[in-house]
Amino acid sequence: MKIKVGIIGATGYAGAELVRLLYTHPNAEITAVSSVSFEGKKLSDVYPSYKALCDIECKNADEVVVRSDVVFAALPHGLSQELAAECYKAGKAFIDLGADFRLENEDDYKQWYNGEFTDKELHKKAVYCIPELFRDNVGDSRIIANPGCFTTGAPLALAPAIADKLVFTDGIIIDSKSGVTGAGRGLTQGSHYPELNEGFHAYKAGGAHRHTPEIEQTLSHLSGEKVKVTFVPHLLPVNRGILSTCYAHLKDGVTKDEIRKSYEDFYKDEYFIRLLPDGAYADIHNIKYSNFCDISLHVDTRTNMLIAISAIDNMVKGAAGQAIQNMNIIFGLDETTGLVIVPPAF
Amino acid sequence: MKIKVGIIGATGYAGAELVRLLYTHPNAEITAVSSVSFEGKKLSDVYPSYKALCDIECKNADEVVVRSDVVFAALPHGLSQELAAECYKAGKAFIDLGADFRLENEDDYKQWYNGEFTDKELHKKAVYCIPELFRDNVGDSRIIANPGCFTTGAPLALAPAIADKLVFTDGIIIDSKSGVTGAGRGLTQGSHYPELNEGFHAYKAGGAHRHTPEIEQTLSHLSGEKVKVTFVPHLLPVNRGILSTCYAHLKDGVTKDEIRKSYEDFYKDEYFIRLLPDGAYADIHNIKYSNFCDISLHVDTRTNMLIAISAIDNMVKGAAGQAIQNMNIIFGLDETTGLVIVPPAF
Amino acid sequence: MKIKVGIIGATGYAGAELVRLLYTHPNAEITAVSSVSFEGKKLSDVYPSYKALCDIECKNADEVVVRSDVVFAALPHGLSQELAAECYKAGKAFIDLGADFRLENEDDYKQWYNGEFTDKELHKKAVYCIPELFRDNVGDSRIIANPGCFTTGAPLALAPAIADKLVFTDGIIIDSKSGVTGAGRGLTQGSHYPELNEGFHAYKAGGAHRHTPEIEQTLSHLSGEKVKVTFVPHLLPVNRGILSTCYAHLKDGVTKDEIRKSYEDFYKDEYFIRLLPDGAYADIHNIKYSNFCDISLHVDTRTNMLIAISAIDNMVKGAAGQAIQNMNIIFGLDETTGLVIVPPAF
Amino acid sequence: MKIKVGIIGATGYAGAELVRLLYTHPNAEITAVSSVSFEGKKLSDVYPSYKALCDIECKNADEVVVRSDVVFAALPHGLSQELAAECYKAGKAFIDLGADFRLENEDDYKQWYNGEFTDKELHKKAVYCIPELFRDNVGDSRIIANPGCFTTGAPLALAPAIADKLVFTDGIIIDSKSGVTGAGRGLTQGSHYPELNEGFHAYKAGGAHRHTPEIEQTLSHLSGEKVKVTFVPHLLPVNRGILSTCYAHLKDGVTKDEIRKSYEDFYKDEYFIRLLPDGAYADIHNIKYSNFCDISLHVDTRTNMLIAISAIDNMVKGAAGQAIQNMNIIFGLDETTGLVIVPPAF
Repeated sequence: MKIKVGIIGATGYAGAELVRLLYTHPNAEITAVSSVSFEGKKLSDVYPSYKALCDIECKNADEVVVRSDVVFAALPHGLSQELAAECYKAGKAFIDLGADFRLENEDDYKQWYNGEFTDKELHKKAVYCIPELFRDNVGDSRIIANPGCFTTGAPLALAPAIADKLVFTDGIIIDSKSGVTGAGRGLTQGSHYPELNEGFHAYKAGGAHRHTPEIEQTLSHLSGEKVKVTFVPHLLPVNRGILSTCYAHLKDGVTKDEIRKSYEDFYKDEYFIRLLPDGAYADIHNIKYSNFCDISLHVDTRTNMLIAISAIDNMVKGAAGQAIQNMNIIFGLDETTGLVIVPPAF
Repeated sequence: MKIKVGIIGATGYAGAELVRLLYTHPNAEITAVSSVSFEGKKLSDVYPSYKALCDIECKNADEVVVRSDVVFAALPHGLSQELAAECYKAGKAFIDLGADFRLENEDDYKQWYNGEFTDKELHKKAVYCIPELFRDNVGDSRIIANPGCFTTGAPLALAPAIADKLVFTDGIIIDSKSGVTGAGRGLTQGSHYPELNEGFHAYKAGGAHRHTPEIEQTLSHLSGEKVKVTFVPHLLPVNRGILSTCYAHLKDGVTKDEIRKSYEDFYKDEYFIRLLPDGAYADIHNIKYSNFCDISLHVDTRTNMLIAISAIDNMVKGAAGQAIQNMNIIFGLDETTGLVIVPPAF
Repeated sequence: MKIKVGIIGATGYAGAELVRLLYTHPNAEITAVSSVSFEGKKLSDVYPSYKALCDIECKNADEVVVRSDVVFAALPHGLSQELAAECYKAGKAFIDLGADFRLENEDDYKQWYNGEFTDKELHKKAVYCIPELFRDNVGDSRIIANPGCFTTGAPLALAPAIADKLVFTDGIIIDSKSGVTGAGRGLTQGSHYPELNEGFHAYKAGGAHRHTPEIEQTLSHLSGEKVKVTFVPHLLPVNRGILSTCYAHLKDGVTKDEIRKSYEDFYKDEYFIRLLPDGAYADIHNIKYSNFCDISLHVDTRTNMLIAISAIDNMVKGAAGQAIQNMNIIFGLDETTGLVIVPPAF
Repeated sequence: MKIKVGIIGATGYAGAELVRLLYTHPNAEITAVSSVSFEGKKLSDVYPSYKALCDIECKNADEVVVRSDVVFAALPHGLSQELAAECYKAGKAFIDLGADFRLENEDDYKQWYNGEFTDKELHKKAVYCIPELFRDNVGDSRIIANPGCFTTGAPLALAPAIADKLVFTDGIIIDSKSGVTGAGRGLTQGSHYPELNEGFHAYKAGGAHRHTPEIEQTLSHLSGEKVKVTFVPHLLPVNRGILSTCYAHLKDGVTKDEIRKSYEDFYKDEYFIRLLPDGAYADIHNIKYSNFCDISLHVDTRTNMLIAISAIDNMVKGAAGQAIQNMNIIFGLDETTGLVIVPPAF
């Protein structure tokens, strides 16, 4: 018997990507989807690529909760807390692709999202989960805070070096470049084709992007001390993919071989992490449409700097794919179920 | 027990796409691949996106034949006839993604490919198969001439109107636009990024492209008379997809409704054909990475012209996907096996 | 003393392109610009690429008229007639990049634009001018109907063959492909980067696009008889450029050499028409940012079809550049003044 | 009387861009060009966009020297020293777009280019010149080492902060992203359209790229002490443009206002430097085809980090445009002559 899956906010990009991936998941079936903007419309009316496959009609959120064993919410921040409570009461698992449960510290949430924890007990029940780093925390929790896109790729690139204390946690710089789907389906002048095409720029540089505290939270857990980073996202003229070029000062005497050894050990059982050989460079071209995170390692011996680069598909490992990986964890399935995808060669 | 599949020419684009699609085919396993250029190398060395998935090493063609139940050949024209003979003798099925067996008339082959049928009996055993049009011809044949990319999309756009004699077969114009992968992996100035990007042009216009006689062969079979077409391919600055805009003069009194009825009947049981509703336009965006052929119908009542537009992924329905569809036919599987793919929404 | 130029609708794409080209025109200076959406803002606030160059502030339309010798209007249809009257009264030249004065026949205007000629006398004073075809009509007129983008490239590709009666005017097909700027600066889901990028589709196929009657009007003037065409525009994932592939049946016995001779004679003194040598193909890559129209000629001898292909920059020869060419005519300047531009090689 | 200009290596991308820009330079005329690969061919045969404008035939290098007052060389490193000597002897000015004269220290040249200074006296006569930083060094020198692309944008982004000692020179990180033309016209798998399009990756990370010592040389001159940087270039899927995101630790107590003041003073008379207002971000979209360098300033007060971002067109300010700027200096022209270009809005 298949897991009954509901998707709230199914017509946004993350929601649509959940639909694409879950459609061929062998242990799940999509039983209901909702959309505020397109209630009453078929999903395939919104996304013609889904025609003849996902012709399911968009309902409202309540119906989704009723019909599902697990509810995915892909909503702007602030809208998930109530839904989570409703699901919790009804005994449904809840996986939040939004930001409401990501920050553990309510002060941080207030500062960065200008909101508050409406139900503090509920927040204690939620688990923030990049599976490769935090799967052991899930236990029997049924509320998952699914990480954001920048906040998945960059920490995965840095985790082993920080956990093994091979780099200083001061002065870490994360220079990230994201495909346009990261900004969602909403229309803006900045995502109007002629103004983005053949362009490239940074935005919210230096402590202005809300993923900053989330990255710091993860790195702090890994290092055991409070970490601050300089984070600068950029907008790439491609549809998908995030490349994060992460810079950290090596501790004295740490060699490239030690770095490599640390990463190999740390990720040796991880299906979705592909540690590239020396001389190769992580490229978003190679992970598109898949749940892989490719990592390449480079050391500048002239400046004693580790340069760890990760590439993920922002909509898969950075959103819908990782959410399904988390669903697999909750339901005791192999984490790769439904996520064995060969990234296209071109 | 899975079908043992071998791929000759696995490092070209069509070969690589076969690998991608067959990797998750439930009834097949790739047992051997070959490449002249990369013999001894792993597939994932050539295509890093395949790392950890398709690390199989490239052998030579003979080894591939030995180890396989079915051999796919993705080779330049002229190289398949001998291989086909070898497979035939060894009792292996042979699916040719090249052009050697596509033209039924040897004179045509001489004219367009400057070659000859080295084994005329073998050619009689081969079946040219766009499944939606010619699957009944396969019978117990084990040699399939898999159609080219332009020669799949355009005929599918025109087939019902021609078969039902709703249009004149004189003066048909096919204006096709193909993504760059259609030109293969070989390096040319024309596919050098800065010279192709933001550009667009026709090539081999008007009876100069080798797909012309193949399209005409198919349309002639459908109409029962000799059809000639004006065919002009163009090069699109995208990776994948072919859009064919096909123009045919409507016979007197034929209405748009009759056209639609004809197409609906003709394709009513075809999983891979998606006939779009009135007002919608076929778009390569909506079929990428999948085996679908989207068709939209438009009538210019001022000039009494049918405009039938098809969109396919040139590497899937136009090459590797259709080849697998043909394999499914030969092995008695459902044609959709391994080809149920949701085209990404973005 | 420089010509005082005003631009109404300066923040749309056509208006912005006028600004770019006029900034370096040796005989003109921009004295005022207007914008309904951005009144009070600097042009460089809207288009940061103009910073430090075109920091001129957007006023209202009336101020533009007062301060100018010639007024360019780049407005949605329906808004130019009144402005033209105002300019006419004030003795200012008026060049309309909109559609109000393009169709000579009021019934056509009613049918396609659902509007009427509010001042019929004024319409008689206006001249529709693709300079290479109609410059002799300008005389001392001071109201120019500047042609649309599709309606410039396709007629230029067909003009000599039609004027010299080398092709039948029945059954002409124009398959055009336009870059995205043709759709303007307004936000739509269809021009949202992730939904357009790597996509391609037709729109308003077969007598549904308003440029159809305008193309027919031009071809009818050239042939001396009423011409109807099948016109299908497509949307290219590039910023600029229109390629029009035009199909016309050759009259009996007309050879490729006669065709070429006809075009060479017709365009022999035209700076902005580049007739490509045999074997070359018009490519939007080669004319971007310039006022050139490249034309290549191809004959399908199997079907007796002329395939004439033109490439223009939709924003230059298809809008702002041609408008300036028309201004040069009115003011007695060499037509190339301010328009000598080397199209970038990449 | 116009300056007679010769271009050696005119069919490479930098050479072709020189041709484009010099064609409309009011005080210069191209009298001869050379190309090893295309000797005897017209420039417009190699670049069809130049047809009817730059139909000049490619000669050999010697002829270019003879016919010119100033010779631009756009050659792979190692080939310019001899040419420079020849020009020097013949009293011609020589502007080298290659690397032979960029590094002042021969040991550095040996280490990074594996070559030597064949004529040490000649090297002393050469001046490395980013005009905004080093124009005073030119004096009556007639041999100019024109800087590389990465080595122009990044130093311009950092110069005021370093010269005014507002940042530490330890730990500077330069994360640069370059359009594909930076890799030249030569064909590689990495610049084959389908493998680059929709991709993004770093290359030669961390002290492996030859522009590293050149950047360090410039920053060391500015600071008066030996500076080392961590430099990581990336390849953007666009034709043109380099964005350099530069990170430097602010000295204690330095405020954002002091930073801005420093930049405003430093660049107050520089036509080609556009310092963007607070809140704006440098974007390659806004400087394409022009000689501008846009700079935006950002401070991460949480980590006390200056983030200075510059955007240049790698082929203009990063190559041909700056070379012409240097020519203007040598010949006593206003630096902006021939370089007043409005970057297109789209």
